[in-house]
Amino acid sequence: MNLERIEHRACFGGWQDVYRHDSSVLGCTMNFAVYLPPQVETARLPVLYWLSGLTCTEQNFIAKAGAQRYAAEHGVIVVAPDTSPRGEGVADDPAYDLGQGAGFYLNATEQPWAAHYRMRDYVVDELPALVEANFPANDARGISGHSMGGHGALTLALGNPGRYRSVSALAPIVAPARVPWGEQAFTAYLGPNRAEWVRHDATELLKIATERLPLLVDQGEADEFLATQLKPELLREACVEANHPLTLRLHPGYDHSYYFVASFIGEHIAWHARAMKA
Amino acid sequence: MNLERIEHRACFGGWQDVYRHDSSVLGCTMNFAVYLPPQVETARLPVLYWLSGLTCTEQNFIAKAGAQRYAAEHGVIVVAPDTSPRGEGVADDPAYDLGQGAGFYLNATEQPWAAHYRMRDYVVDELPALVEANFPANDARGISGHSMGGHGALTLALGNPGRYRSVSALAPIVAPARVPWGEQAFTAYLGPNRAEWVRHDATELLKIATERLPLLVDQGEADEFLATQLKPELLREACVEANHPLTLRLHPGYDHSYYFVASFIGEHIAWHARAMKA
Repeated sequence: MNLERIEHRACFGGWQDVYRHDSSVLGCTMNFAVYLPPQVETARLPVLYWLSGLTCTEQNFIAKAGAQRYAAEHGVIVVAPDTSPRGEGVADDPAYDLGQGAGFYLNATEQPWAAHYRMRDYVVDELPALVEANFPANDARGISGHSMGGHGALTLALGNPGRYRSVSALAPIVAPARVPWGEQAFTAYLGPNRAEWVRHDATELLKIATERLPLLVDQGEADEFLATQLKPELLREACVEANHPLTLRLHPGYDHSYYFVASFIGEHIAWHARAMKA
Repeated sequence: MNLERIEHRACFGGWQDVYRHDSSVLGCTMNFAVYLPPQVETARLPVLYWLSGLTCTEQNFIAKAGAQRYAAEHGVIVVAPDTSPRGEGVADDPAYDLGQGAGFYLNATEQPWAAHYRMRDYVVDELPALVEANFPANDARGISGHSMGGHGALTLALGNPGRYRSVSALAPIVAPARVPWGEQAFTAYLGPNRAEWVRHDATELLKIATERLPLLVDQGEADEFLATQLKPELLREACVEANHPLTLRLHPGYDHSYYFVASFIGEHIAWHARAMKA
């Protein structure tokens, strides 16, 4: 097993580490961050997977969200992968919202993306297997994320029943098939046939969901992408129609930045800890 | 009064703002960050001045330390200035630890620095006057900082009795006149006469301090600069000799990064809040 620790920093009584490994699913070298709270000394712990937004690497969340304090408080391991495959041999695009840094947490079927862009398989299968084999983790998994990563959390949880004990999102792209960010990415990665898109759109997945995993979603009302890309009302409508439990909280004044994420991540980690330890 | 708000972000129920203004003391345009906790709606609040370390701007602390949560909890305004004068007309040096980003919180007397490098006057006088005139601040001031900024906090508090109600530092340069970072900076900014340096070295100022303001200092034992640049034992010795109250806490495993600052900033803000509200 190749797994190289490239950062190791004491933080809130535990360790904020970053690892590098060769991903067989993605066909490239990947970094992921893992926060190990102090409780790993004496117990195997549940793992929260955090999916970041457009342009992020594994670094943004660990440096800016202040999540370690809450993970230490609740005894939760937090794993934060990169947002796409990376490297010279990996297809890319000059746009910030396509290609490297913009994997959209799906398996691409179109060229030139299909060879490496398999973030669904990486996040749902390969990374948890690696984490559970190499860290003091138990098999309770939660998933959360911000913006594109919120889309990832919602679609991967809804699309893989039984895989996660808990799911939440901050300022997620709830209906990518109906907004510009998602339309551009899905056209590139999945092709123009919209029938292929529905398995990657949370509002569509809710129509066929077999599991009633409650959703916690926070959204800032001053978010600069609210009306064009995020549209939380579409998630509310889809949940009402599907009779799916949703806690959607709209926060006046908050924008799309990590200052918003930092303000509410503590409540998300508490939410996941309750469900993963139940 | 020129004072332009260039960032305005909701954070923990308050606002993380950044302002730009023309500093008459420094002779250039400066940015500073100010966190306004929710309590500003109903009261004038004490102000903690945070001084950052080498290479930082006003951004590092506000993005990475997670201090807003604690400032909101305790009702403290936090002001974080830049670490030096800036701009094309301001002297600089290619080294990361001299010139722009490395003002060392003193008034330079040597050329080419003397014209703009007056960070002592900026932090102690001009900035508080600006803050107290334009924000819901009262006249209770505390000062803290990291690394070079910890040096700034200790020397400005010890050198200006009555000006601050509280002082603390994380991984400070406690004896700059005796370590490479300080020797380089003081030689450039103050000239080779070491007699001029003592007013800018906390361990020297303790010998003549007339005020017994208690010092709180946290230091990581795995700090990569511990033995060469920081030397907390010199602060302990100076405080013992001067009979000056010091709480010095050494933390196994912690390095010099913001993961260390984030882990302990909550206790510093609580310390300052207690003293500033007493």
